[in-house]
Amino acid sequence: MTTETAPSSDTQLSGRLAELEQRLLAKDRRALARVLSWVESGDQRGRDMLRALYPRSGRARTIGLTGSPGAGKSTVTNELAKAFRQRGQSVGIVAIDPSSPYTMGAILGDRVRMTELYSDSDVFIRSLASRGALGGLSAATQDVVHVLDAYGKDVILIETVGAGQDEVDIAGAAQTTILVNTPNMGDEVQTLKAGIMEIADVLAVNKSDLPGADRMVSALKALLSLNPDRGWDPPVVRVVATQGEGTEKLVDACDAHFEELQSSGRLEVAEIERARQQITALARANVLNQLHTADGEERLTMLANEVASRASDPHSAAAAWLAGS
Amino acid sequence: MTTETAPSSDTQLSGRLAELEQRLLAKDRRALARVLSWVESGDQRGRDMLRALYPRSGRARTIGLTGSPGAGKSTVTNELAKAFRQRGQSVGIVAIDPSSPYTMGAILGDRVRMTELYSDSDVFIRSLASRGALGGLSAATQDVVHVLDAYGKDVILIETVGAGQDEVDIAGAAQTTILVNTPNMGDEVQTLKAGIMEIADVLAVNKSDLPGADRMVSALKALLSLNPDRGWDPPVVRVVATQGEGTEKLVDACDAHFEELQSSGRLEVAEIERARQQITALARANVLNQLHTADGEERLTMLANEVASRASDPHSAAAAWLAGS
Repeated sequence: MTTETAPSSDTQLSGRLAELEQRLLAKDRRALARVLSWVESGDQRGRDMLRALYPRSGRARTIGLTGSPGAGKSTVTNELAKAFRQRGQSVGIVAIDPSSPYTMGAILGDRVRMTELYSDSDVFIRSLASRGALGGLSAATQDVVHVLDAYGKDVILIETVGAGQDEVDIAGAAQTTILVNTPNMGDEVQTLKAGIMEIADVLAVNKSDLPGADRMVSALKALLSLNPDRGWDPPVVRVVATQGEGTEKLVDACDAHFEELQSSGRLEVAEIERARQQITALARANVLNQLHTADGEERLTMLANEVASRASDPHSAAAAWLAGS
Repeated sequence: MTTETAPSSDTQLSGRLAELEQRLLAKDRRALARVLSWVESGDQRGRDMLRALYPRSGRARTIGLTGSPGAGKSTVTNELAKAFRQRGQSVGIVAIDPSSPYTMGAILGDRVRMTELYSDSDVFIRSLASRGALGGLSAATQDVVHVLDAYGKDVILIETVGAGQDEVDIAGAAQTTILVNTPNMGDEVQTLKAGIMEIADVLAVNKSDLPGADRMVSALKALLSLNPDRGWDPPVVRVVATQGEGTEKLVDACDAHFEELQSSGRLEVAEIERARQQITALARANVLNQLHTADGEERLTMLANEVASRASDPHSAAAAWLAGS
């Protein structure tokens, strides 16, 4: 089994790519958009650009937002972006759309609304629509974050629907993760179920002008008390994102968490852990790409037929498939 | 990259394993339990036994049951097992427990209740508790099914909670999949969300003595009509599993589906597809096992540190990790 073509050791880009890199670093939004499209689609040029840009990344703060559909994550993301802009920070937003056609419409609608809101050229919004990228959505999200980081964004907000493990992983891969809740009935149970509490650094109760907000805050605090030894006591912040209420407190909570990460040394540990996870995901994807070539698929079909007819067994067939690739 | 040690070409077992195989084939339940434990834990002896036993499999009918927690899947499984026993068929039950501690208790309770019910030695119940097995829970489930099949079970029922994609895959990997619903509010939405309708061959509405049963039946039929071209029209069967009502109709529906699979030739096609999926999962797991050796982990840590310090980038590190293994 061979590995993918090794990158050129100096990560020098050829003429046109080098020009695009310079345009991107000069904050040309079109150059940024093109590179991100390559990155998302798994284009080799995207990987070449990533290699060249990666040394310039590592300066941005990353904040993940997750929570149930309907919790108002987009509005909270929006408010956070505005607050960071008021502090003079440039902002990138990475929004992960689930592939489900049932929710896509609403989310795209939100995106459009948010995009219209920003004539502000220092906010760049990118929707990651599919799971087609090399290494899965989680690795692709990291790549997009690295490009936005190298581009010079100070803060990168990563919004996911939190509907599955993959999306929980994405939100949890930011330096600070905000879990957005609402006072609506049933949310307590959902929060418990998803095991999402373990990754939340800051808890926002959005729509906290609705009845049941006090009960939700109490429930969250009770849940947090079940898991006390994490070196950080996640604050519960009430917000009414549609009114802009509580946004400053939310930013303060994120800042406090970031300072704690820095002073405790956990910022660096987490960065290494994220790198480890992305390397693993990419290595795995590379191996699978090598197995699932046209020739590999043909041999797989042959082996599957042998297994179905009991001429071979699944474990022997798996070993034979690997040995032949 | 090397592959796992190839099996001996004749799949002959050494003395003690050969003896255990003979005991298993003579329907010794302890021998069966031991082999299943090896299979689940990824023990090499389990793989050896699988290779030896696999040619004797392929005779059992497999039926998957899935649905939301609380739908009464265990009770329906129980009733199906009794019905098949009354027809003189021996039955194996494979129950997939989710790893969540929140639901584990209740499900183990069900298992105990069911086990007590069967003094009947022709029913064998096996709980698959964890995701530790080679190739994931889905591949492990197939292995367990193959062993029960070789042991001589006529019908194998596979019950999963259907709480995630993995479990939907497991239920869908049976010849016939029953989706168990209840008239409870909100289920329609959940059914839609999980994309689970596509894999259901038979729809059971359990607890159909409760209010809302008619509405649930109508909702399911409406959903089915959205996806008409599947060569099989999934029947919607009302059951009250706790009263044993509707069980015969459910068995008839399963039989009708099985006959359709046979007459259309789709039984064989699906068998090949299952083999393909298991080979892929096992090959993938083998590769990962090779990467995640002690040495591989050490190199991964080194590479993750390089990536975090920007001395390397994730894609180059992934290529380097693969190249060195």
